[in-house]
Amino acid sequence: MADQAATATAGSPNNVPLTPLSFLFRSALVRGDKPSVIYGDRRFLWSQTLDRCRRLASALTARGISLGHTVSVIAPNVPALYEMHFGVPMAGAVLNTINTRLDAHATAVLLKHSEAKVLFLDPQFIPVVHDAVQILSEDCTFTKPFLVLIEDKQGKDSIPNEVFTYKPFWEAEYEDLLKSGDPSFSVQWPEEDQPISLNYTSGTTASPKGVIYTHRGAHLNCLASITMGSMKLAPVMLWTLPMFHCNGWCFTWVIAAQGGTNICLRNLSAKATFDAIAEHKVTHLCGAPVVLNIIINSQPHERKPLPHKVEVFTGGAPPPPSILSQMEQLGFIVHHSYGLTETYGPALICDWRTEWDALPLMERALLKSRQGVVHLGLCDADVKDPSTMLSVPRDGQTLGEVMLRGNTVMKGYFKDQEATAKAFEGGWFHTGDLGVIHPDAYIQLKDRSKDIIISGGENISSIEVESVLFRHPQILEAAVVARPDDYWGETPCAFVSLKDSATNQALVSSESVIAFCRKHLSGYMVPRSVVFGELPKTATGKVQKFVLRERAKSMGSLPLKISSKL
Amino acid sequence: MADQAATATAGSPNNVPLTPLSFLFRSALVRGDKPSVIYGDRRFLWSQTLDRCRRLASALTARGISLGHTVSVIAPNVPALYEMHFGVPMAGAVLNTINTRLDAHATAVLLKHSEAKVLFLDPQFIPVVHDAVQILSEDCTFTKPFLVLIEDKQGKDSIPNEVFTYKPFWEAEYEDLLKSGDPSFSVQWPEEDQPISLNYTSGTTASPKGVIYTHRGAHLNCLASITMGSMKLAPVMLWTLPMFHCNGWCFTWVIAAQGGTNICLRNLSAKATFDAIAEHKVTHLCGAPVVLNIIINSQPHERKPLPHKVEVFTGGAPPPPSILSQMEQLGFIVHHSYGLTETYGPALICDWRTEWDALPLMERALLKSRQGVVHLGLCDADVKDPSTMLSVPRDGQTLGEVMLRGNTVMKGYFKDQEATAKAFEGGWFHTGDLGVIHPDAYIQLKDRSKDIIISGGENISSIEVESVLFRHPQILEAAVVARPDDYWGETPCAFVSLKDSATNQALVSSESVIAFCRKHLSGYMVPRSVVFGELPKTATGKVQKFVLRERAKSMGSLPLKISSKL
Repeated sequence: MADQAATATAGSPNNVPLTPLSFLFRSALVRGDKPSVIYGDRRFLWSQTLDRCRRLASALTARGISLGHTVSVIAPNVPALYEMHFGVPMAGAVLNTINTRLDAHATAVLLKHSEAKVLFLDPQFIPVVHDAVQILSEDCTFTKPFLVLIEDKQGKDSIPNEVFTYKPFWEAEYEDLLKSGDPSFSVQWPEEDQPISLNYTSGTTASPKGVIYTHRGAHLNCLASITMGSMKLAPVMLWTLPMFHCNGWCFTWVIAAQGGTNICLRNLSAKATFDAIAEHKVTHLCGAPVVLNIIINSQPHERKPLPHKVEVFTGGAPPPPSILSQMEQLGFIVHHSYGLTETYGPALICDWRTEWDALPLMERALLKSRQGVVHLGLCDADVKDPSTMLSVPRDGQTLGEVMLRGNTVMKGYFKDQEATAKAFEGGWFHTGDLGVIHPDAYIQLKDRSKDIIISGGENISSIEVESVLFRHPQILEAAVVARPDDYWGETPCAFVSLKDSATNQALVSSESVIAFCRKHLSGYMVPRSVVFGELPKTATGKVQKFVLRERAKSMGSLPLKISSKL
Repeated sequence: MADQAATATAGSPNNVPLTPLSFLFRSALVRGDKPSVIYGDRRFLWSQTLDRCRRLASALTARGISLGHTVSVIAPNVPALYEMHFGVPMAGAVLNTINTRLDAHATAVLLKHSEAKVLFLDPQFIPVVHDAVQILSEDCTFTKPFLVLIEDKQGKDSIPNEVFTYKPFWEAEYEDLLKSGDPSFSVQWPEEDQPISLNYTSGTTASPKGVIYTHRGAHLNCLASITMGSMKLAPVMLWTLPMFHCNGWCFTWVIAAQGGTNICLRNLSAKATFDAIAEHKVTHLCGAPVVLNIIINSQPHERKPLPHKVEVFTGGAPPPPSILSQMEQLGFIVHHSYGLTETYGPALICDWRTEWDALPLMERALLKSRQGVVHLGLCDADVKDPSTMLSVPRDGQTLGEVMLRGNTVMKGYFKDQEATAKAFEGGWFHTGDLGVIHPDAYIQLKDRSKDIIISGGENISSIEVESVLFRHPQILEAAVVARPDDYWGETPCAFVSLKDSATNQALVSSESVIAFCRKHLSGYMVPRSVVFGELPKTATGKVQKFVLRERAKSMGSLPLKISSKL
């Protein structure tokens, strides 16, 4: 109806390929007069969003973009980035959202690997794209993508002036491109198994891998997210999670499915979050625990009363129970979900059981910090010994690797058959995360295999040590890694940043942190060394443990006297 | 995890066929200790339901049931009927739930057409099955199905004594069969396109239409129902809708997907409904408008206060606005959904717009009585001129046929390629319902295609009733149309002219015509009113049914006592 040209060619009357594009067609039809995207003074309706996405698809097609071509974008959470989630696949192409925290070199690596035919860039990233293109200009095997600037009057004030000193090296501007497109462009309905996006895994490991999402997987992950969160119609989503991360954990498409409103945000801050919640009556937001940290550590003058309970999906790293309980006290309902880039974002959900409602706050938070059980998009999750592929006992104790199966597992790694085959060995997707499975079938992460610290033959979970550090009243963030040790092999080394560091630096010592840990942990698990300072992070807020591990390594072994004392 | 044997063979790590069976595996794992089915004193947990369904699949397999075989059942909403929704497809077989209002002749027709290999029967249907088998025993091309009685101590008091006078002609009893089954039976994961159930649209024609549902369609219809109703986890469903109707509009499987509880009910009444809502804190129920009618026409002594707002899905016939508004006043939230057997039940939903909240009660009810827009399981709905396949204008005025496309449209009619091809002509599923499309894209039914009368949610073909009337020795001509009815929605009204009217007028009474029909038709199809006189005709001699429809309308509803008696 909204789009007869498109749907009339879609499959047969009783079998239509699954795709998130159907969500946009439906919302444009049913909620065409309702707000789709809000970014400061810019407001779009669902009918306009469909119009703009079709124009985008038409303009890309006119430029020769077709089935399977990569279209890249480097931008913060602005409306254009949202529109590309539909407009690019409407042209049959694959959307590649580039991590905005990458440097020019890393960006160049991705542009080359992805074979991007078009690159959209936000003004903020003019310098990095300029340099990346420069780097690649020396590579004769590289074809420069068509460069399109996404103008942003709205965000101009928060973009450093220096970026506007660059001579334009882009070929077009986004709004002009849209104007050139045809709003009645006939969309070719995709095949189910067709790639919709290409997401490079964030840089916690050395060489990034390009994860391929399909239309089918994205569609089913959206439905799973709606059902696992009992999401009502017309949610209002505040974009505190970068859309470039797993396509916003697929919530870009979820909001279209439920006919909701996307509140875009260029820069994340506690004040901007509380302001937007109050102004737009936000119902949902997503983010790694670092986003929750920003919220709970906000200053009283930055806060505003919530208009209602706000639902928060968190994941990407195990959320410390103390953060979960503080969020709850502030009036947020936190859903804890676990997933990876390879699983379209959310895969497990810590399904809440009503009998837990009666437990004390901290116990509830502890239960909620478990990663949980599969959502409806996946078929099965298990914790297995990767060498034998046998399930570990459900005792909440025995470590194994978390493995998954189902429709919301990636198609594979782009141009990397070997890595793909390895990830799917034995008929399961290997997450690389270590965990246990409890008698109630809930999975709990203990650590990534490389994050386990082995001290005197004992396995120490860095997560367990970190969750104690998070309970320390002056500690803002904490990460624990192995420090090489002549005596123990390895010892836990804690990197911590302090709340209000100027004041607290004088008050909090290594000794006092170690003493605090000793009260709450077995002796062998207590960090032997504590380093204060800001933690290095990826764009998605994950602490870069490999950087810390390098630092700990460079510190060398502790003197034997200190090391062997505990 | 719950079922490694089953899932290990399911598809590949990243592509697993969609099936509602996955819902049961998940609930048995995540909510194994929670109630799945409650029927009076009988209570099952999800772990037990999985155990029983696997035993059933195992026992059926042991009896030679395999891929594509039909397993039929004739039973009210008892636990066994729920279990068959999983246990039968777990054996690779196709579940055929027989309309419990059919007579022996119609039941025999379906048993033959469906090629049922097994028939489960509830004690209440011993007489009708006895006679159906008797009828078929004279047919040498028919192989009698294996007959299994579903004992029911619970329901014994409400079953007429006479049924217990029959000598056992069944070969087994349900609980014995389960005991013989293996609870660790390895379930063969189905293909997506594999039939899961067979639902007949009308049971008594010589050529019954058996609608085939697939595992994929059923899975997607469930997800669509959850999202369109924003259904929370662990709903409590009171089974006021017969599960034999489109597999309970797929809500049988929905409740497993959301880990909820099924409250079974042998006989529907206002008192039983209010009692169950209060006792079990029911959150959801479904039913044709006739069910809503029973609720609003309840006596004060039958009512109990609702523990909270109860959500009701209604459909199957256009709900009169007065019924919707009265339900709302009683504390129910009514979702109006439209669909057909051919669309797995729900297809359109009258998506509620918040701006309508401010309207007066009756206006809200009028808006809610519109059939609405597609849910997320379908791709497209339209109102078209069936001869040109062009869309009618969105003016809320121009009549056309409602047509649908998407994954929750049936696979086709069993053994009827011609009817299937006709239903899918022009690349759309033709509903046979006439309607308009409003400027806001909401579809509203204006008239059923002329042959169909909907009484208590059941489709009655007027042609079929007429063909019986034509067999009456004194009847010359007959035409049957719908008469509006406060209780049933519609009842069949027969207009007849008599042969040799001068002589016969004294001999033939309404009562005698009704008695004649009762001998040849299932009870619900029997006309409730008979009008004698010459029939209005066109110049070419066709009966002008629209004139009769007007006449029947002007007669108004029958008194409730007469109407509800049959």
